[in-house]
Amino acid sequence: CSWTKNLPNAPTPNIIIMLMDDMGWGDLGVFGQPSKETPNLDAMAAEGMLLPNFYTANPLCSPSRAALLTGRLPIRNGFYTTNARARNAYTPQDIVGGISKDEILLPQLLKTKGYVSKIVGKWHLGHRPQYLPLKNGFDEWFGSPNCHFGPYNDQSIPNIPVYNNSEMLGRFYEDFKIDRETGESNLTQIYLMEGLDFILRQTKAQQPFFLYWAVDATHAPVYASKRFLGKSQRGRYGDAVMELDYSIGQILKWLRTLGIDNNTFVFFTSDNGAAVMSGPNESGSNGPFLCGKETTFEGGMREPAIAWWPGHIKEGSVRGCMVATGTEIGRPIYYYRGNELMAVRLGEYKAHYWTWSNSWEEFRQGINFCPGEEVPNVTTHEQKEHTLQPLIFHLGRDPGEKFPLSVLSKEYQDALSRISAVVQQHKDTLVPGIPQLNMCDSAVMNWAPAGCEKLGKCLKPPESNPWKCNWPH
Amino acid sequence: CSWTKNLPNAPTPNIIIMLMDDMGWGDLGVFGQPSKETPNLDAMAAEGMLLPNFYTANPLCSPSRAALLTGRLPIRNGFYTTNARARNAYTPQDIVGGISKDEILLPQLLKTKGYVSKIVGKWHLGHRPQYLPLKNGFDEWFGSPNCHFGPYNDQSIPNIPVYNNSEMLGRFYEDFKIDRETGESNLTQIYLMEGLDFILRQTKAQQPFFLYWAVDATHAPVYASKRFLGKSQRGRYGDAVMELDYSIGQILKWLRTLGIDNNTFVFFTSDNGAAVMSGPNESGSNGPFLCGKETTFEGGMREPAIAWWPGHIKEGSVRGCMVATGTEIGRPIYYYRGNELMAVRLGEYKAHYWTWSNSWEEFRQGINFCPGEEVPNVTTHEQKEHTLQPLIFHLGRDPGEKFPLSVLSKEYQDALSRISAVVQQHKDTLVPGIPQLNMCDSAVMNWAPAGCEKLGKCLKPPESNPWKCNWPH
Ligand SMILES: [Ca+2]
Ligand SMILES: [Ca+2]
Repeated sequence: CSWTKNLPNAPTPNIIIMLMDDMGWGDLGVFGQPSKETPNLDAMAAEGMLLPNFYTANPLCSPSRAALLTGRLPIRNGFYTTNARARNAYTPQDIVGGISKDEILLPQLLKTKGYVSKIVGKWHLGHRPQYLPLKNGFDEWFGSPNCHFGPYNDQSIPNIPVYNNSEMLGRFYEDFKIDRETGESNLTQIYLMEGLDFILRQTKAQQPFFLYWAVDATHAPVYASKRFLGKSQRGRYGDAVMELDYSIGQILKWLRTLGIDNNTFVFFTSDNGAAVMSGPNESGSNGPFLCGKETTFEGGMREPAIAWWPGHIKEGSVRGCMVATGTEIGRPIYYYRGNELMAVRLGEYKAHYWTWSNSWEEFRQGINFCPGEEVPNVTTHEQKEHTLQPLIFHLGRDPGEKFPLSVLSKEYQDALSRISAVVQQHKDTLVPGIPQLNMCDSAVMNWAPAGCEKLGKCLKPPESNPWKCNWPH
Repeated sequence: CSWTKNLPNAPTPNIIIMLMDDMGWGDLGVFGQPSKETPNLDAMAAEGMLLPNFYTANPLCSPSRAALLTGRLPIRNGFYTTNARARNAYTPQDIVGGISKDEILLPQLLKTKGYVSKIVGKWHLGHRPQYLPLKNGFDEWFGSPNCHFGPYNDQSIPNIPVYNNSEMLGRFYEDFKIDRETGESNLTQIYLMEGLDFILRQTKAQQPFFLYWAVDATHAPVYASKRFLGKSQRGRYGDAVMELDYSIGQILKWLRTLGIDNNTFVFFTSDNGAAVMSGPNESGSNGPFLCGKETTFEGGMREPAIAWWPGHIKEGSVRGCMVATGTEIGRPIYYYRGNELMAVRLGEYKAHYWTWSNSWEEFRQGINFCPGEEVPNVTTHEQKEHTLQPLIFHLGRDPGEKFPLSVLSKEYQDALSRISAVVQQHKDTLVPGIPQLNMCDSAVMNWAPAGCEKLGKCLKPPESNPWKCNWPH
């Protein structure tokens, strides 16, 4: 399960991580999207390595990103909640916590090797001053601390700020437009320019760099710039995918133009599965996999992934080995929802100890995390325990998790005994981090981010009144 | 929607159709199979053209094959039944009918241009003497008239014969082994050799040829030869796919070795969607599409398809245009089940006039044509009429047919008015053929195929006792 065909001749290759937001496994032509509208990503795969067994460490933005940057599961790095069992928690504006000072982030590690690091796009590891990117290893930042939800009224909820390094530049919907009617926004183009500019400056300075390009056009409300709107066979979501695909092509072309393609490792993936609960206008495809975002079925955590490094990674290669953000290559995959180990994958076998899609209460209101994919006893609407007799699927024969193995079969017994040993070891050695996502408070919202004074954009926060956050999923 | 980049310099290129049996859209790496175990087909796509919008004319073997060889919908060429509404009919051993003499088959058309034609594998257009391949345009045949079901007892049901041209060579399970326990059979290797030998002989004779390579290892009971058994991540079905993929690679290599690759048009597809009702051990994947074989949802009729012709078809190209066996390129797609027009696709819109998965009676016995994919009001277990207000899906945004458009939307009304006009014209101009699949009779089974005397393999047929065939689906 090694990735490179020969050892790098450069000890410090540039690193680019292209992290998509809520993009699904099935959204790329090379992963089976019928519309085949991602020519640049498909070409990137043909020139690099496709990883069909790549996983996120969590089916939601914040914990997934915390795992990516720390190399540790959210249960270890603190990006989870103990307010209730098995809940997905993240960093909305009223979250009090953020990335722990005890964690070592990738840009901090790279700094010891002389790298300069920039994040472009969504941070989502806490928005209070001490949690922001420039306090946590990054040298530069252009983007937002939270999702581009809104528009808000700036009275009960402030619009999300957009930062340039350590100071705000403006706010979404005010200074950085997203037209909720038409879906038009030129944010992806801005993020592209920020990336190209950073690459150019570091190349000129002969400085090894790390670019974390965390774009969010495929996260609801999805957006695209005018040039791409209406161009896809897939509606607005497809337009957003096309613009991201185009932009990725531009970045790879830029590396070639600058002559640094042989010295730059590029990794493309997404933070969690497509948000199928949002319906076809605002979400993508998880291909053959069950359910999506927020769930620990394959649709929630199996991610599209491509590694690209001309001269080092063999063109057109495919690696079947399992990898997840937060674990080593080839290790078992742990599917957590908050503080609960819901499932484990070992080889081709996946054992579910707990199943849950979303609550009956929400489901009865029409919110469905598995639309058109109900599998009896699997996509359950209560938190169903299977710890004594886990549901086991063979993901090779049954990637859609629709046919549990018979518990009476030898295959089931063999798989279970091997998985049980692995899980026991995992639990024995696990040291949970202090949960960061338990407390909420309206006073911590983005009322007055650094730099607001110069812009006349400071808002008056309410009195502090912390509460235990309510995580319904 | 044209396929070739320049006009053929040879007026009579060789033609090879590689028709898979019950292989699904999602079984190829290039169409999103996570296991990525089809390197030869993926390379074929990279060297040729991928057709993500290719359809069969029917979700079942016989009518699909009749449409492929006649270029006409089954409702026109007679491969349907009027015994009951909207039933899939085929050619089991007790079928009385077969391909009509009024139809012109592709090999007959090609014979006028000097081609020699061979079918290797499953025929399935009738097994009574007048319906066999050599009576219907083919010059050579190696294979079987029916599916490789069995083993039978040769008392109430005879084992299916294997023909060499116009005489039987033996029978499945007796002379041509398929081990139902292990899944071992070397039939695909035999079919490969038959294909290579035919290509070689015609090339030496400088004779334009048509090879119809209709292999069936992916049809239940699935089989593979010893070398491939247990090699796939996907179980026995995946082993069969790997062996077919390997064999296809061998055929393309053979064309190159013989120097005729630039003069040979090769087309790969499947006769109908994966038989998801058979479960993960005996069936494949329809990728993002709903349900499978026997149904008029996308999983039943959208097929993997690759066109390959070095020097004429642009390498690595993708054609989005809709094509179906039985219709012209770019025309609407008609989804029939027997004598009923169930649905129509026009552009990205698909309208369902009738929905049916399978009957409540069967469903209650555990037979499920849409396992784990129930969509309320869509995958109905009664034949549900929507003729006054069809269900309409946008297949770009919603390839899985899970989110019907709101009938109140302008989009719905616009799509409906365009589709209605097309359907009206289709119905006005349709001349149904005489239905060939209405009558059954045990006396017509393969008791004493031509050539049985020499082999001592003749069996005594029962008295003729025809009945109206019962088509439950
Ligand atoms: Ca996300
Ligand atoms: Ca078939």
